[in-house]
Amino acid sequence: MSKIQVAIMMGSQSDLPIMEEAANILKDFGIGYEIKVLSAHRTPKETTEYAEQLHAKGFQAVICGAGVSAALAGVVCAHTDIPVIGVPIDSSPLNGMDALLSTVQMPPGVPVAAMAVGKPGAKNAALFALRMIALHDKGIAKKLAQFKSEQRRKILDTKLTK
Amino acid sequence: MSKIQVAIMMGSQSDLPIMEEAANILKDFGIGYEIKVLSAHRTPKETTEYAEQLHAKGFQAVICGAGVSAALAGVVCAHTDIPVIGVPIDSSPLNGMDALLSTVQMPPGVPVAAMAVGKPGAKNAALFALRMIALHDKGIAKKLAQFKSEQRRKILDTKLTK
Amino acid sequence: MSKIQVAIMMGSQSDLPIMEEAANILKDFGIGYEIKVLSAHRTPKETTEYAEQLHAKGFQAVICGAGVSAALAGVVCAHTDIPVIGVPIDSSPLNGMDALLSTVQMPPGVPVAAMAVGKPGAKNAALFALRMIALHDKGIAKKLAQFKSEQRRKILDTKLTK
Amino acid sequence: MSKIQVAIMMGSQSDLPIMEEAANILKDFGIGYEIKVLSAHRTPKETTEYAEQLHAKGFQAVICGAGVSAALAGVVCAHTDIPVIGVPIDSSPLNGMDALLSTVQMPPGVPVAAMAVGKPGAKNAALFALRMIALHDKGIAKKLAQFKSEQRRKILDTKLTK
Amino acid sequence: MSKIQVAIMMGSQSDLPIMEEAANILKDFGIGYEIKVLSAHRTPKETTEYAEQLHAKGFQAVICGAGVSAALAGVVCAHTDIPVIGVPIDSSPLNGMDALLSTVQMPPGVPVAAMAVGKPGAKNAALFALRMIALHDKGIAKKLAQFKSEQRRKILDTKLTK
Amino acid sequence: MSKIQVAIMMGSQSDLPIMEEAANILKDFGIGYEIKVLSAHRTPKETTEYAEQLHAKGFQAVICGAGVSAALAGVVCAHTDIPVIGVPIDSSPLNGMDALLSTVQMPPGVPVAAMAVGKPGAKNAALFALRMIALHDKGIAKKLAQFKSEQRRKILDTKLTK
Amino acid sequence: MSKIQVAIMMGSQSDLPIMEEAANILKDFGIGYEIKVLSAHRTPKETTEYAEQLHAKGFQAVICGAGVSAALAGVVCAHTDIPVIGVPIDSSPLNGMDALLSTVQMPPGVPVAAMAVGKPGAKNAALFALRMIALHDKGIAKKLAQFKSEQRRKILDTKLTK
Amino acid sequence: MSKIQVAIMMGSQSDLPIMEEAANILKDFGIGYEIKVLSAHRTPKETTEYAEQLHAKGFQAVICGAGVSAALAGVVCAHTDIPVIGVPIDSSPLNGMDALLSTVQMPPGVPVAAMAVGKPGAKNAALFALRMIALHDKGIAKKLAQFKSEQRRKILDTKLTK
Repeated sequence: MSKIQVAIMMGSQSDLPIMEEAANILKDFGIGYEIKVLSAHRTPKETTEYAEQLHAKGFQAVICGAGVSAALAGVVCAHTDIPVIGVPIDSSPLNGMDALLSTVQMPPGVPVAAMAVGKPGAKNAALFALRMIALHDKGIAKKLAQFKSEQRRKILDTKLTK
Repeated sequence: MSKIQVAIMMGSQSDLPIMEEAANILKDFGIGYEIKVLSAHRTPKETTEYAEQLHAKGFQAVICGAGVSAALAGVVCAHTDIPVIGVPIDSSPLNGMDALLSTVQMPPGVPVAAMAVGKPGAKNAALFALRMIALHDKGIAKKLAQFKSEQRRKILDTKLTK
Repeated sequence: MSKIQVAIMMGSQSDLPIMEEAANILKDFGIGYEIKVLSAHRTPKETTEYAEQLHAKGFQAVICGAGVSAALAGVVCAHTDIPVIGVPIDSSPLNGMDALLSTVQMPPGVPVAAMAVGKPGAKNAALFALRMIALHDKGIAKKLAQFKSEQRRKILDTKLTK
Repeated sequence: MSKIQVAIMMGSQSDLPIMEEAANILKDFGIGYEIKVLSAHRTPKETTEYAEQLHAKGFQAVICGAGVSAALAGVVCAHTDIPVIGVPIDSSPLNGMDALLSTVQMPPGVPVAAMAVGKPGAKNAALFALRMIALHDKGIAKKLAQFKSEQRRKILDTKLTK
Repeated sequence: MSKIQVAIMMGSQSDLPIMEEAANILKDFGIGYEIKVLSAHRTPKETTEYAEQLHAKGFQAVICGAGVSAALAGVVCAHTDIPVIGVPIDSSPLNGMDALLSTVQMPPGVPVAAMAVGKPGAKNAALFALRMIALHDKGIAKKLAQFKSEQRRKILDTKLTK
Repeated sequence: MSKIQVAIMMGSQSDLPIMEEAANILKDFGIGYEIKVLSAHRTPKETTEYAEQLHAKGFQAVICGAGVSAALAGVVCAHTDIPVIGVPIDSSPLNGMDALLSTVQMPPGVPVAAMAVGKPGAKNAALFALRMIALHDKGIAKKLAQFKSEQRRKILDTKLTK
Repeated sequence: MSKIQVAIMMGSQSDLPIMEEAANILKDFGIGYEIKVLSAHRTPKETTEYAEQLHAKGFQAVICGAGVSAALAGVVCAHTDIPVIGVPIDSSPLNGMDALLSTVQMPPGVPVAAMAVGKPGAKNAALFALRMIALHDKGIAKKLAQFKSEQRRKILDTKLTK
Repeated sequence: MSKIQVAIMMGSQSDLPIMEEAANILKDFGIGYEIKVLSAHRTPKETTEYAEQLHAKGFQAVICGAGVSAALAGVVCAHTDIPVIGVPIDSSPLNGMDALLSTVQMPPGVPVAAMAVGKPGAKNAALFALRMIALHDKGIAKKLAQFKSEQRRKILDTKLTK
């Protein structure tokens, strides 16, 4: 596996089943990643310190998953210069609408790339990071093309017999 | 005016016309306050430092107004032990629903007291702080009773002749 | 346990599993509390009378949990001068959005501190009350710091091995 | 004009331009009405007392208009046995959705008849009261039939020439 | 049981478990009722004819339950002069918000009294009808007072021991 | 102009500025149309009668525009066998969400083709009717291809110089 | 069975249980149909090519079911001149509101006929296509009248005995 | 100005006042960009062709702004391997909620980075692209640090004197 290029952060261990979707994609592509459970609200200092080191450690992107008032991506964005990708997680009666609006409605000057609520969003967060990496890594670019091709193949091969 | 007991924070100068509603109430009650424009996202270090000093400086409460993905109240809450009151501000096409959900849907362990969207919320934020202060300050308690009485009087004196 | 300082009200016995989250926090901190099932709509007189006695009985805060058109916190707020904390409860097909808007969108002059929908909100309601008490009670302040530290520890000690 | 049969209550003088729609309909039908500005939150005792006298005074219905967390209709309903009609008023950035859910999502045992947000709702509140009165008043029944007929006529006579 | 005074209509047999809440209340109060499954869209003629006969048959109120684009109450309202009460039923992925808005947002001139979504709304529909009947029936008025008193008693007798 | 093939119905004259968008498209394509102001609620009999004649009169489609609880398209659909197209109109504080859900959330068995809220929806309603007509009218098919081509041309010819 | 006249497209095999509702209706009416799993995003070329052939192959309508950001119907609409019917599918935590708005809120010039979310929408999509076909096929017109009559009969024959 | 690295696409010329916010940021940073008005629905072939050339032409990112059912970003994403950033534009009565959900709720496999609704989102789209570029361009990295520093300075220099 190549060196660690992507950080996956989440506010709580309970977010892991969602965020593993991102990790699995990265693993399949042979991109090293690091998972951190850190909360914008409950471990603010550790979150800040970790965010501040992302650039120097050579990370290409950080993926932040959080539910309810999902402040993690924005706080990390305030403390790093690398691209930040936010995944809203549905963990309240409001169906993830709270996490979605908290993640996507960033004020000007704080660019967080928001993905869909839940597992599709986590998967896409990894794929988006891979697109960034692929701009400068032909191996990944080739694997992305294969992935796209397999996605296409899977749909075209659908059997509808009951 | 008594010593400064309440901090009023807001993420941007454009929030001032809303948050002045809180300041005006405190002024009317003779409670000293301090206004700070500090952003959870654009001045994270100053926001954190300011929040961390609130307790030692003797503040009884901090009122945080913010729009869109309103992270200010939560971030301040993570860095202080004094009561934090959040005022969602309507500053996007989504009518303040983004700020409201970001402010009120705090995760367990991060108690932010959310008020209504906009000016009524800013006014109530000050009145809520006054209720806390009044528990230990008979002068304020008396003024709150007068305020309530005037509110009541104003409604009872309504003239409906056109 | 210290003397009773917090009242926990709820509109129906079915709200108890939610509101117990508040009670459990207070119990853990050694703060006395009293639980009352009283409805703004079905026992209006008893609700009013109870609210009117809160101040004289020395309560520092009252926590009100209610679902659907959640009028309890506002009605209690109209009949007391102590701080009122509202917890919206999800008990209709509308996912708690009805209770949330009814609780947080108070008119100016009626300051209710709204928390998140459901259990996280109930837990935070107690923690918010504790922050108010801690301003004048060093023992509680110390316990709050410990609580915060344990919260932090729990996140930092997360094991991600599957 | 016949004796006063309908009470029109509203939480604030600013609601009058909306609630006058109800008054105008009643006036057109020759039904006596009484307008009261009383707030569930700011004049709770007067609201309660007024509600408690509605039955004895011979009112056939009470129409309650209120905005934001619109508790008025529910509180009046708790203190009277006569039919209560609620009109949600759009007076916050949330477009009246807060007032609508607060008015219509009443818990079981507290029957408030909710109308549409704003002026159409106020007008229909009066028409609904008239339908109730018409069950026992042939004069009003006849006028309602005429009103319906004029409504129909107005639509059928629409001219579309530009 | 007294003569039939209330009609309960619903758009589909699948609405029966909700609308039975209304029937049960009426039965408890000894008020005769008639249940009809008729659809504004699928049996328009029968619906219209039934609505047109309600007045002559001496009904005091008609309760209409319907889901999704809930047109039943409005269509019945267009074809009768007696009071129409609408109960939105949650029967789609949109949590009843479709049925709620279709029921409550009636245009001016078409007064439908909307209740809460689902069972609480069905129960309240019956209680609202009883309030109308009670204006002219002392026996029902007395039973309503007893019902209110039992509601109150049930809350006051709540036992919280676990 | 060819014979009248499309009916445009609307619940109120105030809907005309929206629904004219549909009429203008049809006029441009040389398709005859008839505009009727008829309300599902205020002229139910005329609405029903008109709907019942649509088939026999040779209409190919009927376009129904309505706001708030927009029952018109559904009621027309219940009384005709020709294709019914619904246009939700934004005419309440709820931004057209009420009209949209009322129009699109039809129960099974009542197929209404819903368009976007407001003018774009009215324009598309006409274009959708034209697509149906074009299946059997080569002249219209050709004009639709030209329309599409002009739409395309207009975008490609955009000048961005300020 | 008659020749194939309707295409049913869906973005994923997991949409089949919903879209089969459309297929079953068409089968019952003896209308030939073709099911294609093709994604606007994952098989864009095949989707485009398929859409471009619909006209020449003699299809009378194409029904497109898709969830989340449901682009399928719009993309197909851009590449064909035949009528396009969209069925929003509930496949995310947001209850289908994402699919509904993506399907119905088409820009002017791109007429997609939106149906209700989920199975009722799929069923109505087929019925809407049948209404279009029936304009030129007396056999189908007759079957539609029978279908309507059976629908009506089923409701009128409802037994409410428990 | 450096070579063209970012493409800015929008569905209509009317989106330009919003999307210029992105262009202005890129201009300030000396990053070359190209603006294209191309619609997923009205110029599908040109949109597809343009998207397919983005990679070969050396673009580092493409920013897509669109309103209502905002399919542009997703369609572009399906036809390119470079990172795609979506900006929802508020251009319907639904306050941009339609464009937001259409942009952010992408299915798995189609990674679009969604920004906030409107101008803040357009500005952040450019800043996000700059973060990606800065990973490999020290000059841009330095300018981003300066930008962040100026943002911070502007807030810290706020004067609140009236």
